[in-house]
Amino acid sequence: MHAVEFIERKRDGGEHSSAELQEWINAYVADEVPDYQMAAWLMAVYFQGMTPRETAELTLAMAHSGEVLDLAELGKTVDKHSSGGVGDKTTLVVAPILAAAGLVVAKMSGRGLAHTGGTIDKLESIPGWRAELSDEEFLRQAREVGLVIAGQSKNLAPADGKMYALRDVTGTVPSIPLIASSIMSKKLAAGARIITLDVKVGKGAFMKDLEQARELARLMVSIGRHAGRDVRAVLSQMDQPLGRAVGNAIEVREAIATLRGEGPADLSELSLALAEEALAAARIETARAREAWESGAALAKLRAFIEAQGGDGRVVENPELLELSAETSELRAPESGVVTDLDAYRVGVAALRLGGGRERKGEAIDHGVGVYLLKKIGEAVRQGEVLARIYHRGGRGLEEARRLLAEAYRFGGEAAVPPLILDVVA
Amino acid sequence: MHAVEFIERKRDGGEHSSAELQEWINAYVADEVPDYQMAAWLMAVYFQGMTPRETAELTLAMAHSGEVLDLAELGKTVDKHSSGGVGDKTTLVVAPILAAAGLVVAKMSGRGLAHTGGTIDKLESIPGWRAELSDEEFLRQAREVGLVIAGQSKNLAPADGKMYALRDVTGTVPSIPLIASSIMSKKLAAGARIITLDVKVGKGAFMKDLEQARELARLMVSIGRHAGRDVRAVLSQMDQPLGRAVGNAIEVREAIATLRGEGPADLSELSLALAEEALAAARIETARAREAWESGAALAKLRAFIEAQGGDGRVVENPELLELSAETSELRAPESGVVTDLDAYRVGVAALRLGGGRERKGEAIDHGVGVYLLKKIGEAVRQGEVLARIYHRGGRGLEEARRLLAEAYRFGGEAAVPPLILDVVA
Repeated sequence: MHAVEFIERKRDGGEHSSAELQEWINAYVADEVPDYQMAAWLMAVYFQGMTPRETAELTLAMAHSGEVLDLAELGKTVDKHSSGGVGDKTTLVVAPILAAAGLVVAKMSGRGLAHTGGTIDKLESIPGWRAELSDEEFLRQAREVGLVIAGQSKNLAPADGKMYALRDVTGTVPSIPLIASSIMSKKLAAGARIITLDVKVGKGAFMKDLEQARELARLMVSIGRHAGRDVRAVLSQMDQPLGRAVGNAIEVREAIATLRGEGPADLSELSLALAEEALAAARIETARAREAWESGAALAKLRAFIEAQGGDGRVVENPELLELSAETSELRAPESGVVTDLDAYRVGVAALRLGGGRERKGEAIDHGVGVYLLKKIGEAVRQGEVLARIYHRGGRGLEEARRLLAEAYRFGGEAAVPPLILDVVA
Repeated sequence: MHAVEFIERKRDGGEHSSAELQEWINAYVADEVPDYQMAAWLMAVYFQGMTPRETAELTLAMAHSGEVLDLAELGKTVDKHSSGGVGDKTTLVVAPILAAAGLVVAKMSGRGLAHTGGTIDKLESIPGWRAELSDEEFLRQAREVGLVIAGQSKNLAPADGKMYALRDVTGTVPSIPLIASSIMSKKLAAGARIITLDVKVGKGAFMKDLEQARELARLMVSIGRHAGRDVRAVLSQMDQPLGRAVGNAIEVREAIATLRGEGPADLSELSLALAEEALAAARIETARAREAWESGAALAKLRAFIEAQGGDGRVVENPELLELSAETSELRAPESGVVTDLDAYRVGVAALRLGGGRERKGEAIDHGVGVYLLKKIGEAVRQGEVLARIYHRGGRGLEEARRLLAEAYRFGGEAAVPPLILDVVA
């Protein structure tokens, strides 16, 4: 491996071959290429970019840097990924719908970091539910229930973990090809044939700009095609939080309500769109999504899934079993008007400060705290009316959460509700 | 030090403050900023560049990362630096002229690497001459002789050493601001008030392109001004070697011949130009250069300098005391014509392969091997006539040197001799 020549080629705007990229990634994982050479190359990629072919080859090399799961025996497997948002509990709605509609959802999921939550954290608010499964348990549950979500215990795409940690400290995170290869390497290693991506755009999302998000979505779809997977991406608005609940137990409650047909319109709309894309990719009638939902089959599937992983399935009938802190504080409108803005990022940080998220990997979180948004963009409010209810634990982070929420809300005479689904890339 | 923010600022085309650059360099030298963050920043600088002000501040921070010599007591001190070429023995001609004309040449010099030679290596071909001087010896000789050249034993600009080693392995060498700050940080730390730069341009030089070399020269002059030094740069052609001798002892012989007025025209012309620029910077009549030379005062100064550092001063009268290998091989013209090209890089590598240079730092070299070019660009040659004489030791590297020299020569019907001095920047 001529590391310097490799770096210079990208620096000078050249294109890497597949063999070269494989060698580079393997050498990095084996500590034969030091961090400083990888850092220089990542910065060169930041400036020079990569072609879609290069990005796909890089992603494959990263995916194959560790174990690659083989789910072929399970049939039509599907994975769903969100690029991270605030109040984003769609997996808890979409996965049961897809399992009830005949697909096999066999998914590894992560924990939350900073202002965005993680599906595993949310599920752990269910009494008894556990994320750690043996390989055997994982496959058996996929076969028998059609829905399994496990914590990322496997050594999937270790190159990505190592590269992401380096990007984080070298100013090389915001590069579309590097973001695409990071996300897709883990998805390819996780083995599902169908991958449905929810690319969030807006204040509370990693991608702030629609055009860039579209480019990212197209790139991820093309990487999937290159790897023989069927990938579809929905671009969805994340200027304000999705739904009204932000936290852990409180989001599971909202997901269950949504599967009962009693959830917020935006969460319902987006969940259905994502489910239909996955079904279309699997060549299954998209109408099956709504059927599975309205018939109660999806809710039953959620219960079976929870129980298979040791959780108390009664939460599906009795959401009060999901503990919420009894200590609450209400934020009231400082003026009358219409909500014109509700900054998702600030709401996410508010939930984080309350103890519902973690600043650093490995920190414990409090599943019972969070925020419930009684008013969202486009809704009228009178001065003194409650905007949001804050569930806190002994006042921890309450003052800062109140300040952040007060800053998150803006009022005016009228407001255009931003469209939720911005584009679909398939 | 917010290292990531600092990297991002440069990545996004921003400008660093003086305080920020100082903090960055100090933190790097103290190992508080790791190599991977410096590497990412260097690559960002490669793409975004630096303003002249930023470059000057960076250079000062690097110069002050270690010891800074104070030569104020010595009066009008001058340093001369070449960006590195093949057959470049000008220091051995210019330094005695300047000392004889009334300046104090108190200079640290390096050893050669790869295809370019180093002044210290050349001087070490003089029996008894030694490069290692104590601080006291260095200053006393500067005062008494007006000319001292010591090996770089001091911890001058350690940030540069550390950064250069990193640039070398991360593809970040060819950046004009980084090259300028690397050269000038060492010169500023070495303390001379007047700095005369010989910026080589062409096949055998680091800079291949005149416009880039001019930009580098201007930047170095402006850095010097920022630091209160008087810097002037001569841009000189390095497509073919300078003079006819390439090696160590053989180059000292040629330098002595030149001081006697019997040297090659190109070496004489460039040496005079560099000496005159240094005198002009010191507000001394430039005519003093020619006087010092023609009167023999410069040659006498060379002898005094050699003897002060323990060398055999008789070499000045009797150059045969500079040992050349008795084993020679002649390269003959394959055709009749005019020499149209004589690739300095290949000639330099030929001398290296013969053992006259080093591939890696610390390697021993053979002072008695080298190449003497009987024919240079523009000179007519008949088939079978001797082009070059190769001084080798037991055939080491001879075959490759012959091949390289054969490739270095090109013949044709006529040739334009390239101008030697391309520009002067002051």
